[in-house]
Amino acid sequence: MSHGKQFTLYTHGSGPNGWKVAYVLTELGLTYESVYLDFGKLEQKSPEYTQYNPNGRIPTVIDHKNNDFTIWESNAIITYLVEKYDTAHRISAATPEDKIKQLQWLFFQASGQGPYFGQGIWFKVYHPEPVPSAVVRYQREAVRVIGVLDGVLKKQEWLVGGKPSVADFSFVSWTNVGLSHVLADFTEANIEKDYPHFWNWHQKLIALPSIKKVHEEKTAIQAAQVH
Amino acid sequence: MSHGKQFTLYTHGSGPNGWKVAYVLTELGLTYESVYLDFGKLEQKSPEYTQYNPNGRIPTVIDHKNNDFTIWESNAIITYLVEKYDTAHRISAATPEDKIKQLQWLFFQASGQGPYFGQGIWFKVYHPEPVPSAVVRYQREAVRVIGVLDGVLKKQEWLVGGKPSVADFSFVSWTNVGLSHVLADFTEANIEKDYPHFWNWHQKLIALPSIKKVHEEKTAIQAAQVH
Repeated sequence: MSHGKQFTLYTHGSGPNGWKVAYVLTELGLTYESVYLDFGKLEQKSPEYTQYNPNGRIPTVIDHKNNDFTIWESNAIITYLVEKYDTAHRISAATPEDKIKQLQWLFFQASGQGPYFGQGIWFKVYHPEPVPSAVVRYQREAVRVIGVLDGVLKKQEWLVGGKPSVADFSFVSWTNVGLSHVLADFTEANIEKDYPHFWNWHQKLIALPSIKKVHEEKTAIQAAQVH
Repeated sequence: MSHGKQFTLYTHGSGPNGWKVAYVLTELGLTYESVYLDFGKLEQKSPEYTQYNPNGRIPTVIDHKNNDFTIWESNAIITYLVEKYDTAHRISAATPEDKIKQLQWLFFQASGQGPYFGQGIWFKVYHPEPVPSAVVRYQREAVRVIGVLDGVLKKQEWLVGGKPSVADFSFVSWTNVGLSHVLADFTEANIEKDYPHFWNWHQKLIALPSIKKVHEEKTAIQAAQVH
């Protein structure tokens, strides 16, 4: 790689899972070059990309300071980054049990939040025919997931270890999509009022300098892609 | 706990994620007492259960030999079990990089296989109205996931580290559901013929003594629940 940075991050302008990795790279002060794949040209399914990621989805990272170690699945990437580069445990769990709790939340994000919020988008935007009952199914499931988090955050400020960690960070980008798209027209719940612990937690997360910085980059990239 | 075994496993007779944990407990020779929750009575949403698992789903394990350490999300449970009780790395990755590769596959299973196969079941069995286009969407996605695995298994016998590991085990129970239910009437693909590397890998996995033993227990439990 000729860009001189430690990591190459294969990602996409609006895919939530790539931004999730950017938060952690930025928080840890690691240098990276983003390669934005053009889904319209199916670049994510090209042999040049699937040699790194056979799943043909984003994100993938290559660590040029670790023999070009290549890894995909955003929450596996995040775990790699903190295990190798957050040895002071500034944004990650320190004890064996807390590491497993952190992993538990990462799996809940990956299996409970991401796919269901994603299906909400699918049936709202991409499905070949309107299926209102499917949209409502995924909106209700999104609210259920938010309710689970709200119940936990009523009793503790952060998910693991008493501080903001990758367990919390992992939910941010899909929550943004959930609030702005999946639940935009949903009248059965008012997230801010009905789930205040969840709401306040998310507000504190998006106010963190690293996450704000990445969101500014995201806004700039999306503006450049539109014009 | 009065059952005298090391673990309590909260699970369900037909939920694939609980059986996944049973494979690993059995493979490692760890003793456990299964508590089968009655979803018809919504036992998984009761305060007695959600004190352990706020997500109100199965599985959850309690390790009575580690201060009743309680963990949910099946692939986080699996990771805990091998990190703590497979120190010889008989069925788990040994190096830091292979551990991350193992985690990558566990996340692919949890976010790519489980939810999409699960949505296939939902629209075939539980959705309040027939939506054939949704059924086909999830059948095609199930085949896509199978294709990703087939492409990888064409070049290597096991997913990580040259031996059967929890990365492989994690796919078994959902693959069974995929083949017997999600794809049972799907005519666009013949899994055995079109994806032989995937097919052979799955056949080798279900022939392992630990997985065979758990499947015999599953058959007995399901028969007892029916009669």
